[in-house]
Amino acid sequence: MDTFPNEFRDQLLNLMAWRRDVRRFRTDPVDEAVLMRCLDTFRLAPSVGLSEPWRIIRVQSEAARASALENYKVANAQALAGYDGDQAASYSQLKLSGMVEAPEHLAIFCDDRTAQGHGLGAATMPETRRYSVVGAVTLMWLAARSEGLGMGWVSILDPDQLCRDLNVPTGWSLVAYMCVGWPEEQSDTPELERAGWEHRHNLIIETR
Amino acid sequence: MDTFPNEFRDQLLNLMAWRRDVRRFRTDPVDEAVLMRCLDTFRLAPSVGLSEPWRIIRVQSEAARASALENYKVANAQALAGYDGDQAASYSQLKLSGMVEAPEHLAIFCDDRTAQGHGLGAATMPETRRYSVVGAVTLMWLAARSEGLGMGWVSILDPDQLCRDLNVPTGWSLVAYMCVGWPEEQSDTPELERAGWEHRHNLIIETR
Repeated sequence: MDTFPNEFRDQLLNLMAWRRDVRRFRTDPVDEAVLMRCLDTFRLAPSVGLSEPWRIIRVQSEAARASALENYKVANAQALAGYDGDQAASYSQLKLSGMVEAPEHLAIFCDDRTAQGHGLGAATMPETRRYSVVGAVTLMWLAARSEGLGMGWVSILDPDQLCRDLNVPTGWSLVAYMCVGWPEEQSDTPELERAGWEHRHNLIIETR
Repeated sequence: MDTFPNEFRDQLLNLMAWRRDVRRFRTDPVDEAVLMRCLDTFRLAPSVGLSEPWRIIRVQSEAARASALENYKVANAQALAGYDGDQAASYSQLKLSGMVEAPEHLAIFCDDRTAQGHGLGAATMPETRRYSVVGAVTLMWLAARSEGLGMGWVSILDPDQLCRDLNVPTGWSLVAYMCVGWPEEQSDTPELERAGWEHRHNLIIETR
């Protein structure tokens, strides 16, 4: 099928609105089949030169999870030290990751050195390989949400430290560290907006 | 609504499968209301620290379109020079952009210096601002496809030259140059796969 009815389009916008960065997870496990269905969407993602540069590590062992959590704690303490006064107080109240509770952690990398695709499209903008990985993560995010599953993107991390701790192959760079699990609550409003940290603005479109 | 029926999930996967990088466009115009509906999905995209760093320039004037096309031609000739023998012959046969035919060109930037979001989440991984822009582009891609509209991402460009030619504000970096229009043909198979340049591989998942 290559045409989509109005009703589907309305539901798609609804899905996009309800897809939220989740930081509050229940601790009960995610069924393996559900997780794999969501991960399968990577294969539907576009990629520069058909390079499919995404590489996924499931962070499951106690030691690997602990190193990632420690990484986050150090980076978050440093981030907090960069704020003053009310803003520091506000920052310290925010819950910025669900790493402790989330039953699944996925570290998602880009293989910057992949030969797949023979470099097509990536000569002047090699960063498009990493962008391809982000597109794939976005598809998985929507697929997960359509199953009721929450994902949360943790960016408060030292990426090089994480690569060392997870013993990642040379040439892989961290793109996204995702927590996956069943959300404690549902909302179509970003948590940072509900917490008063920031609100959404209008779209800026210029013309040339 | 925050739950989604099986039928919707099947259609969503179908949409993802049919969303393809389009390089062959019809030249007839895209209705303004349809384009704006697609662009509206940017406001539903997640962004690091709720920074919403996306900035959009519609490239409409003859001069601006000509400069972008010239940029592509130079970059593509340089890319071709990087291949030898059969691969060079194969590359030269590929149609790698629909810039001449596509009625709409969108240059999509990241404002790396935005104060929105107060830097939250972007201290150790500032590239997540640009990744937020890619996520938004991905949502628009799906919304466009659900309307039957094709998008094609042109990455064979000198991004700094493009910023100069379009007189882009300081601090903005090019993330994606998108051609938008009605596709000449429909396919769920990537054009580079049909052309024999590359094929899709299995997903690589490791465990730690």
